[in-house]
Amino acid sequence: MKSKAVVLLSGGLDSATALAFAKNEGFDCCALTVDYGQRNKIEISRAKIIAEKLGAFNYKVIRIDMRQIGGSALTADIPVPKEREMDDSIPITYVPARNTIMLSVALGLSEAIGAQDIFIGVNAVDYSGYPDCRPDFIEAFEKTANLATRVGVEGDKFTIHTPLINLSKAEIIKLGTKLGVDYSLTLSCYDPDKQGRACGKCDTCVLRRQGFEQAGIPDPTEYV
Amino acid sequence: MKSKAVVLLSGGLDSATALAFAKNEGFDCCALTVDYGQRNKIEISRAKIIAEKLGAFNYKVIRIDMRQIGGSALTADIPVPKEREMDDSIPITYVPARNTIMLSVALGLSEAIGAQDIFIGVNAVDYSGYPDCRPDFIEAFEKTANLATRVGVEGDKFTIHTPLINLSKAEIIKLGTKLGVDYSLTLSCYDPDKQGRACGKCDTCVLRRQGFEQAGIPDPTEYV
Repeated sequence: MKSKAVVLLSGGLDSATALAFAKNEGFDCCALTVDYGQRNKIEISRAKIIAEKLGAFNYKVIRIDMRQIGGSALTADIPVPKEREMDDSIPITYVPARNTIMLSVALGLSEAIGAQDIFIGVNAVDYSGYPDCRPDFIEAFEKTANLATRVGVEGDKFTIHTPLINLSKAEIIKLGTKLGVDYSLTLSCYDPDKQGRACGKCDTCVLRRQGFEQAGIPDPTEYV
Repeated sequence: MKSKAVVLLSGGLDSATALAFAKNEGFDCCALTVDYGQRNKIEISRAKIIAEKLGAFNYKVIRIDMRQIGGSALTADIPVPKEREMDDSIPITYVPARNTIMLSVALGLSEAIGAQDIFIGVNAVDYSGYPDCRPDFIEAFEKTANLATRVGVEGDKFTIHTPLINLSKAEIIKLGTKLGVDYSLTLSCYDPDKQGRACGKCDTCVLRRQGFEQAGIPDPTEYV
């Protein structure tokens, strides 16, 4: 029997690639979207389609109302900045403790379904200044996970897999294309229109567009 | 101005004592209940009253539907065992990754409101075999928190306070009584009736009853 894994899936380019990677490594994948009150529900419908297309055995959405927390343009009523200058500061689209919360929920689900492997498509190269995309953070979370759970107490081990952490956007796109990801389904934009067409201007749109250019792969994204 | 703190408040005896402790230490407290789909909503109404009585400046409930996760008697449709033999095994009432999830949400809220101190009423003495109540777990989570957030990146520090971690139930009750906690409001029982009266038989009821006896303080709990 294949080992089970939980794969965090947002509906974006990176997490879809992480799911294809996990599947290709031989894991039986349960895809998980943590819906933290995003304004764009279209991300979730895309994630479900991607999970099916990439052969996940199950797809779960767990809702956590992070709008109660506020403090980010992605969950509160703060406009998403356009054409922000790329610098070293932490951007306003940073959601407080997002990856910690998402990994915690993935950990709970893993323990409940008997999985010991969690995949997350974080990336330290094009990480736009998010502190919770760095290898040090992932390592600390993995250690916490093994102290937090039955699995850890009973002598076994959780592994947090970050197959994209050292890849450029172009390398991620090349990898996913090889593994059969249909990137026309993925949605990276922070501010798509109602049909799910990307704005082409926000940070992630810019990084994504450059990625396809650098990979020499035609960009299937539908822009407004 | 006082420093802000986030205090995890379940409505039980331990977390109410932790809130009174944080307040007494001089923190301006935001109480937080993470509603992980418990079957007993009465816990939440009690938590709100306790937060008000103990002078929290704000009270927040953040809902996360952990019934989607399952795997525990507290969130899935598994009957809560009565009169379980106390032994070293992890009980069925263990919720997968519960404290990791609750601390992650508290971390997000802390970052959003500008708090750097989180209080949680975990206890390693009467911890009923939960792995995520141990000092090693708390230490690992604190390290993770400081790698996960703006505060950590910008050189400051989060602290996870566990004022009850080495206290017996009797010592907790003595401490809270000194700090003015009205324990008749707190609800520890895993299986109260609709009026919020405790069953008197589950693990936490037994520990709580013994605690009052050992503290030599009259037990104000209403039992069925």
